[in-house]
This record gives sequence, C-alpha cells and structure tokens, in this order.
Amino acid sequence: MMGKRIHNFNAGPAALPLPVLEEIREEFVDYKGSGMSITEVSHRSKWFDDVINEAGERVRRLLNIGDDFKVLFIQGGASLQFCMIPMNLALVGKPVCYINTGTWSTKAIKEAEIQGKDVRVIASSEEKDFSYIPTDFQVTEEASYLHFTSNNTIKGTQWEAFPKVDGVPLICDMSSDILSRPFEVAPFGLIYAGAQKNIGPSGTAMVIIREDMAERVPKDLPTMLKYTTFMEKNSMFNTPSCFTIYTISLVLKWLEETIGGLEEMARINQSKAQILYDFIDQSDFYRGTAAQGSRSLMNVTFRLPTEDLESKFVADAAKVDLGGLKGHRSVGGCRASIYNATGIDSVHALVEFMTEFKKREG
Amino acid sequence: MMGKRIHNFNAGPAALPLPVLEEIREEFVDYKGSGMSITEVSHRSKWFDDVINEAGERVRRLLNIGDDFKVLFIQGGASLQFCMIPMNLALVGKPVCYINTGTWSTKAIKEAEIQGKDVRVIASSEEKDFSYIPTDFQVTEEASYLHFTSNNTIKGTQWEAFPKVDGVPLICDMSSDILSRPFEVAPFGLIYAGAQKNIGPSGTAMVIIREDMAERVPKDLPTMLKYTTFMEKNSMFNTPSCFTIYTISLVLKWLEETIGGLEEMARINQSKAQILYDFIDQSDFYRGTAAQGSRSLMNVTFRLPTEDLESKFVADAAKVDLGGLKGHRSVGGCRASIYNATGIDSVHALVEFMTEFKKREG
Repeated sequence: MMGKRIHNFNAGPAALPLPVLEEIREEFVDYKGSGMSITEVSHRSKWFDDVINEAGERVRRLLNIGDDFKVLFIQGGASLQFCMIPMNLALVGKPVCYINTGTWSTKAIKEAEIQGKDVRVIASSEEKDFSYIPTDFQVTEEASYLHFTSNNTIKGTQWEAFPKVDGVPLICDMSSDILSRPFEVAPFGLIYAGAQKNIGPSGTAMVIIREDMAERVPKDLPTMLKYTTFMEKNSMFNTPSCFTIYTISLVLKWLEETIGGLEEMARINQSKAQILYDFIDQSDFYRGTAAQGSRSLMNVTFRLPTEDLESKFVADAAKVDLGGLKGHRSVGGCRASIYNATGIDSVHALVEFMTEFKKREG
Repeated sequence: MMGKRIHNFNAGPAALPLPVLEEIREEFVDYKGSGMSITEVSHRSKWFDDVINEAGERVRRLLNIGDDFKVLFIQGGASLQFCMIPMNLALVGKPVCYINTGTWSTKAIKEAEIQGKDVRVIASSEEKDFSYIPTDFQVTEEASYLHFTSNNTIKGTQWEAFPKVDGVPLICDMSSDILSRPFEVAPFGLIYAGAQKNIGPSGTAMVIIREDMAERVPKDLPTMLKYTTFMEKNSMFNTPSCFTIYTISLVLKWLEETIGGLEEMARINQSKAQILYDFIDQSDFYRGTAAQGSRSLMNVTFRLPTEDLESKFVADAAKVDLGGLKGHRSVGGCRASIYNATGIDSVHALVEFMTEFKKREG
C-alpha cells in the first residue's frame, strides 16, 4: 500500500511532504468522522470553514502578518493575477512599474500592457538572458505600485533581499518561493503565489493583500475579478478550490509543527542549495547558469558540456528514481527544483548521481 | 480504514461515487507507479496529459459531441463564466438574451450588465418566486446568444426540454445537471458547468465550446479571460486544477463503465426523483415548492408545515446520517440534492426517515 516514492525535483506541480499525503489518504473517504470525503463536504459547512480559516491563520503566524492584511484564495493561478493586479490596483493617471527578471515577469508586464496601462519597466536583466537580478533602478515616485518576481523558476535566479522603496507599495509574484524563508510583509500592497510549488497542489493562487488596496478597486469590474469580492466573502463568493485549500492547510501545519517555522525552513533550504551549488562550483563538468549573488535557493539550473549529455543525464537520473530534472522547455539544460518539501536526502541522492554520471560520461 | 459513510444530499460540493474515492485513495501516494502523487506530477507530463485527454474524450463520447466542439477546463467556477461569456461572445452592436429562472441566472445577467452589454431578459419566472420554467418567449432575431440555466439548484426547477431557437446559439449554465441525461449538443454555442455537483470536486468549470465561437473573441482581452487561450493550449496555458480534472476523469469513467452511459444514468435519476416526488405528493405534511412540469430531477425542494419543524427535520435527519437536507440559506425549507452519485439506496433511506418523522411530529 505504501507504493514507490521517487526523489521529486519537479518545478511545479511539485513534491508535497509525504506525511501530508499520508494524512490526506488516511481521511480521504471519511473526513474527521463526517462520513464524507473533504471533496464532498459543503464549502458552507463548519468542516470547510475550519479548513480555510486555519489555512489563513497559519499563513498569518508563519509570516507574522499584521491585521491590516487579508489572506485570500483565488482560482486561476498566478496568470490570472497578472491581469487582476493592473485591473484592480493601477491608479488613474499614474504609471505602473515593473522589474523584468524573466518569463513570468514578462508575462505580468504583457497583461498590464494589454489593458493599456502606463507601464514602466524600470529594470531588466534581459540583455544577459535573465541570468541575474538587477539591483540598480529608480522607482517612479508617483507609481501605482512596483511589481517584481521574487524567484524565477525558469532561469534559476532569486532576489536575496527585496527592493526598498518609499511610498510605493510593492507587489510580488512569490509563486516559487513563498514560505521558503521569512521576510517583512509590511512594505507589500499585495503578494501572490500559485499554490503548486511551495504550498500545495495546483488549483488556487494565494493572495495576501493590504486592506487599503481595496480603495483602489474600480466599482465597475466584473464581480469575480475584483479583489474586494474575495476580501468581503472570505474567498467564498462562490465555491473555492476546496481540496487545494485543504491540502495547503495541511502543508502549512507541517511547516509550523513538523519543520518548526520559517526560520528553520530557511536554514534547511539554504543547506540544500549550498550542497548543490558547492558541488557544481567545484566541477568542470557541470556549470551553473545563474550569476553569483542572484542564485535561486529553489531552482538550481545547470548545464552539461553538450545537449546530448543533458538528455542522457535526465534520462539516466529518471532510471534511478530522480525525477523532474529537465530544464524548462524554453531554455533547455537541467534544473533541480528543491522547494520546501524536497528533503535533504533527495539532494544528497542527486549529488551522488551527478558524481557517478560525471565519472562515467565526463 | 473504511470509515463511516453518510447519505449525502449536499447541493454542491456534493457526493462522489464511492468507487472513485477509493481509487483515488488507493493510488494517492504513488500514482500508477510514478513514485509521485497525482498532485505532484507535472501538468506537462505524460501522466497528466493522459488524464486531461481522457477526461475530454469521455465527455465527447458520453454526450456524443461533434468534432466542431472543444472541451475545456477553466478555473473560477460558473461565476467566472458569467463574466467571460458576454466579454468573449457578445457581438458588437447586437443584444444578448437571457432567460431568468433564479439566483444563478440573475447573477449571469448582472455580469453582462456590468459590462454595459445590451441585455434583454426575454422571459422570467421571478413573479412566481422562480417556481417554474417559462416556456413562452421570443428570442430577438439578431441576438448574440440566448443564455439560460438548465437546472436551478436553489429553487428546484429544471428545463425538461431545452429552448428551440433558429440561428441564435444557445449558451447554458448546466452546473447542476450536466451529464445527468443525454441531450443534443449541436444547437449550443457554449455549455458550462462548475464541477462540484455532478462531475467532480470544486476547482474548475468544464466548458464545451463550438469552435466558431472563437471568431467572436476580442483580440485585446486579458489572456486568461479569452476562450481562445484555453482552446489553443488544451486548457494548459498555465497550470490547471490538476486534482479536480483527475477526479473528473475518474467520475466519467464510472459513468461510462460502471453506470453504462447517459441513457442509463437518466433512467436512474428519473427513478430517484420519482420516488421522492411521489412520496411528497401523497403527503399532507411535506409540500413540494416547484411547479409540476418544472420539477428538478437533481434538487428536490420541499417545505414542512412550520420552520421549526423544518429545523428539527434537518437536525434529526443528520443524527441518522442523512446529511445536507437544509434548503439554501436564501430560501429556507428543505432540499434533497440527488445528483448522479447519490444512490437510490439514499433516496429510500430518506423516504423511510420522512415517513417516520411525519408519524412522530405530524
């Protein structure tokens, strides 16, 4: 009944903590004595109310979020947020600022442009194939907001420290590193994250929004595209993605109670990445693609001497139960995604395989 | 390990077939030998490709859908469709027609109005508290489409036969009766259904769209709000609600292979409803609220002599494992939702309880 488990380096949907999967399985047909699966209980029931409230409270505790923020769950992933953000939060007659650090930032920018907003891309690392995080930029003073992407899954870069800007709310796509480390939430107007990397299965984005942002929301937007709809109804104007939120609540419980919180999670994530980068740096066979100082602790991107060797590497790794090591189809190469739920044992297994593969093929 | 199972009369999220729940549990930690949960595999993997394609093909076979239709999965539930439909499919300078049969139709109409469309409500049963389905109406000839709601979960009414209109595509919210009976898909431009009643857990809407509708989609809409985005990318422009789609594929397998298809499902659904309505009609204690000829086979709404008795009925029923019998909070009373997955044994158990309750309290 246990079944096989591989070392899962998928970029998203990605590994979930095994104890969480086992708990879901255990109570899947009869949720807490209700005589129903969690997938069969009403979203208006006490059972589900407890689930969604617990998920929100755990996020608040883990990130030490103030009372002036709301935690929302909105379907459609980060991609729907790309369009909801300018639609809801761009101030009339004021520009919206973006920093472009890769594919996902580019998509976010495109959605603001489609809506005809006054988009200012105040920094970009495109000229070096998005291999680094720009640190030299000036935010337009009257900007509605400054949008950036905290971690770039495809290019393997990450902001080590977030931009400091006075008077302009930060908006951040944290899909691929939310809850991987502590940070100060106060400077943010809105934080969003597709669930399927660090916090759960696909099916919802988590949105953390400062309450004063509600004043910006135009009255005449479609109901389901207004942040205020979700803020006023505890994310349940209509039926939310219940199973996804339920799983998130269990992942957050694991993060708080088993791991012990974000400080400890960050320490573990730092160790995992360090092991991999140290190994890559001492090698003349593997080569990291992200610039020093911009390297992601979540997605370690690297190349081998040839594309043929890269294909063989990914295929041979899969044979020994190391999965998901292929780079994103848009860039090629190799990538090990090591989100919260990927254990240090998986990283050791990967380094062992990389050593052996180099010996054999190098 | 089996756990308790109740008779589940929830209106949505609602009962799922027990064999489906058991199959999910069985393979939850190791999906088909992948060494990953279905919640952990990439949506770009062969595993998930097979899942989403199988779901689409089963819908095609079950509904006998022609090649000129696409089956899509879009997050946000039916409520997001209320706004996407006029945004994508209203023709410039031409009205959009709606028939108003209750709460959900009213919401769909509101979203078209928010967008400033020329909305014509060509029929409504509001004057009789939405207790019947109007049959006398005239569709504006040059209409972009005619929108209606096939089954009204809250009021317990259902279209027995769909409106026949020449030259104007039908658009229908089938959230609460999709795949409960066969029907002819050809006259429809678009059919949509939130998954959480008849086909799976919450987290996605299923959309069946005729390909020529794509020509209507304005080029400048946000990417995630364009039907063409989903049509061109097999619903995977971004990560879809994978677990929901996976469960849908298993429910559809059950419908095809265990039940034997829609003719048989319709026969069973007819029997279940007949038993309940026959019992209510012979009673001087229970009273059906929907008009004869408009009664829903999915949601049987009824009243007891007093609201106190109704509360006691719902509470006492729950004590003997009959769950979800409370009417919608907006109308009160009682409601037994008997979707595809609620077995005839549950209906017999309910009638038995109703008999006993009447004897005791009547």
